[in-house]
Amino acid sequence: MTTITSVSTADVRFPTSASLDGSDAMNPDPDYSAAYVVLRTDAPDGHEGHAFAFTIGRGNDVQTAAIRMLEDHLVGREAEPLLDDMGEAWRLLVHDSQLRWLGPEKGIMHMAIGAVLNALWDLKAKRAGLPLWQLLSRMHPERIADLVDHRYLTDALTREEALDILRRAEPGRAAREQALLADGYPAYATSPGWLGYSDATLARLCREALDAGFPQIKLKVGADLEDDIRRLRIAREICGEGFPLAIDANQRWDVATAVEWVRALAPYDPAWVEEPTSPDDVLGHAAIARAIAPVPVATGEHLHNRVMVKQFLQAGAVQVLQIDATRVGGVNENIAHLLLAAKFGVPVCPHAGGVGLCEAVQHLAMFDYVAVSGTTEGRMIEYVDHLHEHFVTPAVVREGRYLAPTAPGAGTEMRAASLAAHRRPAPTGAPA
Amino acid sequence: MTTITSVSTADVRFPTSASLDGSDAMNPDPDYSAAYVVLRTDAPDGHEGHAFAFTIGRGNDVQTAAIRMLEDHLVGREAEPLLDDMGEAWRLLVHDSQLRWLGPEKGIMHMAIGAVLNALWDLKAKRAGLPLWQLLSRMHPERIADLVDHRYLTDALTREEALDILRRAEPGRAAREQALLADGYPAYATSPGWLGYSDATLARLCREALDAGFPQIKLKVGADLEDDIRRLRIAREICGEGFPLAIDANQRWDVATAVEWVRALAPYDPAWVEEPTSPDDVLGHAAIARAIAPVPVATGEHLHNRVMVKQFLQAGAVQVLQIDATRVGGVNENIAHLLLAAKFGVPVCPHAGGVGLCEAVQHLAMFDYVAVSGTTEGRMIEYVDHLHEHFVTPAVVREGRYLAPTAPGAGTEMRAASLAAHRRPAPTGAPA
Repeated sequence: MTTITSVSTADVRFPTSASLDGSDAMNPDPDYSAAYVVLRTDAPDGHEGHAFAFTIGRGNDVQTAAIRMLEDHLVGREAEPLLDDMGEAWRLLVHDSQLRWLGPEKGIMHMAIGAVLNALWDLKAKRAGLPLWQLLSRMHPERIADLVDHRYLTDALTREEALDILRRAEPGRAAREQALLADGYPAYATSPGWLGYSDATLARLCREALDAGFPQIKLKVGADLEDDIRRLRIAREICGEGFPLAIDANQRWDVATAVEWVRALAPYDPAWVEEPTSPDDVLGHAAIARAIAPVPVATGEHLHNRVMVKQFLQAGAVQVLQIDATRVGGVNENIAHLLLAAKFGVPVCPHAGGVGLCEAVQHLAMFDYVAVSGTTEGRMIEYVDHLHEHFVTPAVVREGRYLAPTAPGAGTEMRAASLAAHRRPAPTGAPA
Repeated sequence: MTTITSVSTADVRFPTSASLDGSDAMNPDPDYSAAYVVLRTDAPDGHEGHAFAFTIGRGNDVQTAAIRMLEDHLVGREAEPLLDDMGEAWRLLVHDSQLRWLGPEKGIMHMAIGAVLNALWDLKAKRAGLPLWQLLSRMHPERIADLVDHRYLTDALTREEALDILRRAEPGRAAREQALLADGYPAYATSPGWLGYSDATLARLCREALDAGFPQIKLKVGADLEDDIRRLRIAREICGEGFPLAIDANQRWDVATAVEWVRALAPYDPAWVEEPTSPDDVLGHAAIARAIAPVPVATGEHLHNRVMVKQFLQAGAVQVLQIDATRVGGVNENIAHLLLAAKFGVPVCPHAGGVGLCEAVQHLAMFDYVAVSGTTEGRMIEYVDHLHEHFVTPAVVREGRYLAPTAPGAGTEMRAASLAAHRRPAPTGAPA
């Protein structure tokens, strides 16, 4: 037995707003940031669990403080009972009856729980000597189902139904692992389409994305319809008829505006429309989806927990589910999302970009392929080509595909030099 | 013109878990707490704006830190442009493009915004020399509609529809103000029904609540069905046939369990069932409501913003809306909730208790009566008789009715001695 000896945090920020990387209709000037956590034990192997909650700047210190609230649940506790039963780790953190009031299961507190759970997953994978996707893909279906909190899900997905999905995928696991290691997983490119870029930059980046082999490009829309039409026309001309061009409104519209705006852009054949309105609006997304069909609605990066994902699927409000690695209660809750999506036959195309989101979420998509949905049909992981150099095992995309990571861990460990260069000094008197 | 000179915070906690006051199926040991904020200006009148976010213990320091994040938006700014246009104050705080990522509009960050907005409202009412309910009730309908962020609401309630509701209520305002000052507003009692109390305590407190003239009593349920049946039978015997006895499950059940459990308790004629499942589950509540009709579903204290309230009303998922004074984006967003409820013809029975929630929310219910719904029919405010002594102008209930507050302000100012006695020392180096 080994003991968890520390949960330390760092407020890490990158000044991305200076270049308008990441600019969209609701987030004009993000500074990509990480509320970073390192979990240490007294095990002689020296392995550490590294993870983070992604934020876009202000408030990253509050997010970091929320992670520190969880320290008392972990420090001094034996590591193995948690690492061996990560469902128990979820319950320990999510079911804190007092912290629960601050959500429940949403916002800063839930993202903090997700970061700590993901640090435990990173540690577990390092101890196993496997990349997270492979560790998860080799687990017994019963043990995978144990990771999920089935509370509030049973009207849409019972534990038995989850097990059925996992068992059906079991026979092909080994072959799909090999396929991933050989060919990787499809990616799509968002880098060309930030709203803050000039038309010339947009055109150049579209060409570069095509040349790099990406099977889809995404453009930000929603600030000004005339601009959107012009930009979409430029992209369509460069990419050609039939090439998948997705659009992303980042929650900008009300229901009626979303319908009108998407209809105005429909001549440019959008592959999907992403986040047309408030991420809380199940019924609104369902109404939009009905009105703009066959254009699919994509959403998920702001769906704050499995209860929201359940409802979006039940209501037909989402046709492409975009899970996010650090918005929800860690790997555990994202497995619930993958199982729900499989139950409803909806493809999962993870949200990424930011800082470290590509590194983290690729493991979940690859696990989905090997052990849940069993397919990459209609599926791809978002890719944005920046800030990867800060990670020990950066995500690698070649010819429009993520290479399957082979290094042990969850991919979420930042380089020590990057941490040192980009962490804000802790306020005097705060724990280091 | 005067300038906002400081936004100071305090982490205030009361050790209520020692007595099992406030114990329910999901919150076995709450320590009622307030992330407290005081807003000061350089105005010679010396008025301060006091407000808080209510929490139940652990994490109250993170909640307080989130409030401090908003300091930069306010300190050094002229007070009057905000106080004269509180819709602008909302936009300033809610539309911070970076902080938005931490919600959006939910959890710790949104509760922090609510606390700061409510402190501005307290200051505004003190400057006007009016209790908040009266200040709001005398505003022009157009100015009330300006307080609401109509974004994401227009598929259910347009600004014009909101104005129609407010204009229809205008002629009777003066008479209803007088009625309130003469007769107060109905209250109901939750104190008898905490889950941690013995049967004897339950019985004694039910008798006391009846004797005190309360028109309704509420019992916590959801931990054990046999216990619930026994406790409800005791309460029913004491209160008699036909007396309204509500039950509150505090999010304990899945959809199917909620339906079964409520059916098992139906012989005891519950006046409503409160929070049967996850507060995020619009579709789940709608399914429960259909299955247990005519027993009404009540919820709201954890509905994190107006988009959730909108959907609960659209889906028929709530028959009694329980607004909460400190869960959402302050007075502004609660006005949106009152207008939505009026549009859908659903009565509002505010959540209270905790510490300071009675003091705060009574103003919203009274404003609803005077200037929105125009009625107290089927409406009452929750009342729990503890911790009132810590407030400068405590809520007063006589013969089962809240007396209309007459002191200027929002009722949310704690006594200096209580603050001094119950605030946690700030961590070294943190701003005071």
